[in-house]
Order: sequence, then C-alpha cells, then structure tokens
Amino acid sequence: MQSLRDVISRIAGGEITPEAALALSAACIADSEPQIQAFASRPDALVPGIGPLAGIACGVKDIIDTADLPTQMGSSIYEGWRPRADAPIVMALKAAGATVAGKTHTTAFAFLDPAPTHNPHDLTASPGGSSAGSAAAVAAGMIPLALGTQTGGSVIRPAAYCGVAAIKPSYALLPMVGVKPFSWSLDTLGLMAAGADDVGLALAAITGRPELDATAASLSGLRIGIHEQAYAGAAEPASAAALRRFEQLAAAAGATLVPHDGSAALAEAFQSHGPLQDYEATQALAWEYAVHRDALPPKLRAYLDGARATTPRQYDEARRLSRRGRDAARGFFAEVDVVVSYAAPGEAPETLESTGDSRFNRLWTLLGVPCMTVPLMRGPRGLPATVQIIGGFGADDHVIAVAKGLEKLVAAGA
Amino acid sequence: MQSLRDVISRIAGGEITPEAALALSAACIADSEPQIQAFASRPDALVPGIGPLAGIACGVKDIIDTADLPTQMGSSIYEGWRPRADAPIVMALKAAGATVAGKTHTTAFAFLDPAPTHNPHDLTASPGGSSAGSAAAVAAGMIPLALGTQTGGSVIRPAAYCGVAAIKPSYALLPMVGVKPFSWSLDTLGLMAAGADDVGLALAAITGRPELDATAASLSGLRIGIHEQAYAGAAEPASAAALRRFEQLAAAAGATLVPHDGSAALAEAFQSHGPLQDYEATQALAWEYAVHRDALPPKLRAYLDGARATTPRQYDEARRLSRRGRDAARGFFAEVDVVVSYAAPGEAPETLESTGDSRFNRLWTLLGVPCMTVPLMRGPRGLPATVQIIGGFGADDHVIAVAKGLEKLVAAGA
Repeated sequence: MQSLRDVISRIAGGEITPEAALALSAACIADSEPQIQAFASRPDALVPGIGPLAGIACGVKDIIDTADLPTQMGSSIYEGWRPRADAPIVMALKAAGATVAGKTHTTAFAFLDPAPTHNPHDLTASPGGSSAGSAAAVAAGMIPLALGTQTGGSVIRPAAYCGVAAIKPSYALLPMVGVKPFSWSLDTLGLMAAGADDVGLALAAITGRPELDATAASLSGLRIGIHEQAYAGAAEPASAAALRRFEQLAAAAGATLVPHDGSAALAEAFQSHGPLQDYEATQALAWEYAVHRDALPPKLRAYLDGARATTPRQYDEARRLSRRGRDAARGFFAEVDVVVSYAAPGEAPETLESTGDSRFNRLWTLLGVPCMTVPLMRGPRGLPATVQIIGGFGADDHVIAVAKGLEKLVAAGA
Repeated sequence: MQSLRDVISRIAGGEITPEAALALSAACIADSEPQIQAFASRPDALVPGIGPLAGIACGVKDIIDTADLPTQMGSSIYEGWRPRADAPIVMALKAAGATVAGKTHTTAFAFLDPAPTHNPHDLTASPGGSSAGSAAAVAAGMIPLALGTQTGGSVIRPAAYCGVAAIKPSYALLPMVGVKPFSWSLDTLGLMAAGADDVGLALAAITGRPELDATAASLSGLRIGIHEQAYAGAAEPASAAALRRFEQLAAAAGATLVPHDGSAALAEAFQSHGPLQDYEATQALAWEYAVHRDALPPKLRAYLDGARATTPRQYDEARRLSRRGRDAARGFFAEVDVVVSYAAPGEAPETLESTGDSRFNRLWTLLGVPCMTVPLMRGPRGLPATVQIIGGFGADDHVIAVAKGLEKLVAAGA
C-alpha cells in the first residue's frame, strides 16, 4: 500500500515532486484497475494542488458530488449524472492540496447490492460495501487516501475486509452536504488509508483540526473495555481470534482490559437502527423508488418495498431509543479510555454476491461515536481480520492516538 | 387568500373539481404575478394528483430540488439548473395529491440579498426573506400552500411581513434531503398557508401524522409564557403592540400569562447561532465561493468573506452552547403550555433593499423547536403585525392547536 505519510515526507524532503507522486498513483491504477475495478470514473490527468496533501491522489466514493466527474450512485438511474457543484468534502480535500484520482465504485445508493469491485487479497472474495472501490483502491496500493460513507458499516467493514485503516469519525465532523443521503440521522463520511497514522494526518489536514494528527498513545496504563456486542450475535472464528490477538498485544503493552457489556439501553439503541434507517431511506429515495423502481437493484428494491411500511410512530420510537442510547453512551465511554470490539463478523465473504454484514458497526454509527480500524492479522483463509477501536462522541483524536499505538505494536510484531 | 381547508371542503362536497381548483390558482397567478413576482419558474400546466391535497397548488421555494422544473437557488450560478430528482418533500407533497404550482423566488442561497418579490400589502415594502416568493404568493391569494425554509427566520419572518400563517416545525420533522443547505444544524423546512387550520391540515397530510391536523385548543386555562427576548434587542412599536394585543385576547379567553425570561443558557444559545451558521455556511457554499465568488450577490459575498474566519474551536464552542441551550429549553418549555414572542421586529421594512431582521427567530431555529405565526392585526403603516407561538421540541401538534385557538379569537374579533 502507499503510505500517505510516507508520500508527504518524500515530497517534503525533495525526494519526489507532487507530480511524480500522482504519476505513481496513476501508474498503479493503470496496473491494478483491470483486476480490481475500483473506479467508476476517472479524470484525464492528475494535477497536484497546493497544501499539506499536495501529491496525494484520493478516491471519492461515487455518491459524493463532483462538478467535473460524473456522480452515478452505483445506479443506472444516475448514469452520466453531473452535479453542478463539488460537495464540501471534495472542496476540503482540494483546499488541502489533494487531487481527486477518480470516483470509486459504490453499491447502488450505498446499500447491499454488490459493486463490481474485487477484494485485492482474493479476487473471488467480497471487498465489502458500500464503500467497496475506496477500500479496494487503497488496499491495492493504487491510491494513498479514499473517502467512504457509513450508514450501517460501510466504511469500517470494507476497510476490515480489505485490510486498510479507516476512521468513521464522530457524526457530522465531516460535512454531508452534497453526499447522496440514505438515512440522514446515520450517514457519516469517513476516510481510508494504509495506516492509522496516515488517516490521522489526512483527517487533520481536511478539517483544519491539527489535534487529529495525534501522537500515538502508549497502551500502557490504558483501561480498555472489551465489548463483544452479544446483542448483535456471535462473531466468526476469524474475528474472535482478532479480538484475542488484540487482547494479547494490549495486555503485553500494559493495558488493563475489562469486559464492558454496556446497559440494556445500548442493546435497544442497536435495535432501533433498523426502523430509523427504514423510515429515512424511504424518504431519501422517494423519487428513485416512485419513478425508477424497476431500475433499482434487487436487494435495494426489496428493502424499500418493506421499509415503506415503517410508520411515523415506529420512527419516533426509534429516535427516542437512539437518544436514550446516546445518553447511555456517555457513561459507557466515561468508564474506560476506549472500547474495542469486532470490526466485522469475520473475514470477507467468499463470494462477490454479498458485501458482508454490518451488525457489529450499526450501533456506533447510530451513536455517532468515532470508530477506527487498523490491519491487525490474517484469518484462516488468509484474508485480513481485525478489530475496531471506539471512543466517546468527539474523542476522535483519542481514538486515532490509540489506533496509532496499536499499529506500532502490530508493526513491532509484539 | 385561498384557504386550503376551504378548497379541500369544496372539492369534497362536489362544489368544484380538483382541476377547477387548480385552474383558479392558475388564474390568480396570471393575474397577480406581474405585480408580485413570486415565481422563478412555473410548469406549463397544473395537473391534479390523488390524495388529501388533490387540487391544491403549492409553491416550492427555489432552493428545493425538482426534477421537472429548474432549481436556481436565486443565483445566476444555478441558472437553468435541473436536478435529477425531486426532493423528498416534493415527493411527499405529490404523494399527498398536491400539485407544484411553481418554484418560488428565494433570496440567493436563502441569505439576505433581496429576491425580486414584492409584498402584496404594499408593493414598495419587503416581503421578507428568504422564502419571499412563497409568503407573497400565499398572501396574494395565488396559491393555498407554499414551502419555505428557515435557517435564521426565513419562514416565520416573511409570513409575518406578508400576513400569512406559517409553521417552522421541529428540526428534521420534514426531510431536508434535496434542499440546498446553508447551515445543516439549523436549516428547517416549513409551510405557509392562509391560516393555522390550513397549515395543520397540510402538515398532517404531508407527514402522514394525523395528529398534526389538531383540533383548535381553547386558550382558557392555558399557562402561556410571554418571552420578550431581551437578549435580541427591543421590538418596534408594531410588534410590541401585537404582543399586547395577543395578551389581551388570551387573557380575555381565560389564559394565564406569565413573564417567562428563560435562563442565561438560552441567551448564550442565541449568541451561538452566529458562529454555528458561519462555520457551516462556509463549508456548505465552499464550491460557490471558491469557483464563483464574483457571481455571488454583495451581502452574501461579504458575509462569506467574514464567515470563513470562524475556527473549528469557535464552532465547537457554538455547538456546545447550542446543546446547553437545548437542554435548558426542556425546562423552559415544561413550565408553560406554550411560549409567545415577537415573530419579527415590526412591520415589513419600507424598502425592497432589505429583507428585514431574523433576531427574534434565530434562537428557536437553533433550538429546533416548533414555531407558528398567524395573522393577528395591522401595524401603524397598515402592514401585518403578529406574534409567534413556540413549543417544546416535538410538540408541533400542540403549537398548531394553540395557533388555531388564537386564530379563532382573532376571527371572532374578541
């Protein structure tokens, strides 16, 4: 993979120019794209900007508006569609000097019907979704940075399956304007890169919040809650092993590990993700459903067929439970430094017909709290298996610092 | 004005057809539009839908996406712009049977540079803004229903200036997808109609929440907080007289009126509206500012020139204060049945160069609580002067019921 920090350092040291860094990305894309199919569209040339991310080629999920490239939502309904304006997150990327390397494949409207993308670790395995192209492009070493979005688990899950680092920041840390909504109470932009250090650097540059380029935290002395999300079902052996591996690394580094179950309010909040998303998705895609139902892919069409039965009363109850969950989360996160849980049920599914399962991601998206994953180990099928580090609302810098600390332990093979 | 309830009743009673009701609106538009200039674009023909609002011609503010009419944001930057999809709120209108009568003039990007619209009560006076065309079209009797949006006071203020009823519902009651954002923490869709009864009927039909078509509340026995918003400055004599007139009507009807100042947290929340909006607007309009700054109208351009200096730290502090304000608001609204305050500083400004002042509206937009205004009286210049009724978050049905009760008192000339 291309490390963003490494590219930036080499540019700063005069080793390469931003143009050369972009040319390298372009060459890697040309090399790997035929196999991986990460991109829905690409510009004719990659021209560097000015700023801390000059020379960085960034993939932009194809539900994010761009003025000079199509934005096709992974759907024939938007074939060739050109928004008028760049989304604010794209403007922020450009203002930081980054270059849009292309629009990355998304599942249609960021739901569950697979994108055409392959997992670079196994071309017959799912890259996950919905931010499939973003995760695969980073994993394949085509680009050092990519944007994804998460409504259930659409950033953390493909990152885990493809073995890249990613952050789903606190809700609304990154502006959702110009990003096709699926469920506005849940939709959250995130970043993917080779490692946690790269993610922190990029997030700091894009947001103008230098504290997000956090120094790696030592895990020594940290109190880490191990949260197995029993309410979401059991993990597969690969993810269970990853959590045990994390525990070994963290314990050896001097962290205190505590089982951290959480109150019933969190389990109820987890359950409320469904009706909350159902009601909002029905509205968010009202035009597509009413006018182009036949052009919707089968999983999304069947989902909307059912979701539209959700009543305002069920939605209000889901909102009430999600508010209670957010209240409960304050206590939950106050008792420990961070929480660690499964990033996905297991390794990437051995099929291109499924994007996997977001059940270990949904609660955190609903709570709006920062989640981060870093590549940790390989599972029995040789595919990446990992955990996610989760913090309280607004503690993005802290989560990044801990993820960087974990990354150092992994690199040291501790 | 055309009463929506009246049109619906006459259609239900077989007195007129939906086609005839729309033809009446079309005739009124043809008659008044040359003077009022409420519409930015209109369809060739008005065709009725099927549902409770069949036969109702509705104006749609021109920052709201429509697939079959341009969406021009009041700006040359979006001249002729055609979104791909209808916004969910437009789909909800159509699903309820209403017909889009046209896109109504908005100030550019819903800021302060005046729209070309005139106030039907005095063609040399401001209709207010930013939802100028919507308020004026309803006030001039052209249409029985219109959509507006409010970030500061852009629904309640033009409604007050034009003498129509309006609701700014609880934050996110109506879906903001496909509505051009200015400040996503604040932006709220609202409705305008001839009276509170019409507003309640329409809001219930659009949301599928029958309780919003609330029965008029008797003011007898209600405990009503009179809130003068001293932190926002003094009202002009016209609005002060309207508040006194409200007090007379309510007291005569048997309500208990109590001065209701609110805690310092509310005043601080009021102050936080500025930096919150500044930071978000800078991002929401990042593309327009970076690529088309010269095409922005002068007030918006100058505003963005200054707003971009807002730091993440200032924004975070504003968000903290707004959260504190929302916490404080729960107690504030729990002590009374509703709160009543000025809807605007006074009568509509005697100029087409200003859209007036939102200082009595901003706090409620920030708190996300429902506000409603109904025509109450005339000021010294013969223009409408009124108050707004404000309730706790989610108490939209209650606010509508009280507004309808007030409307009955006004109609009775009590």
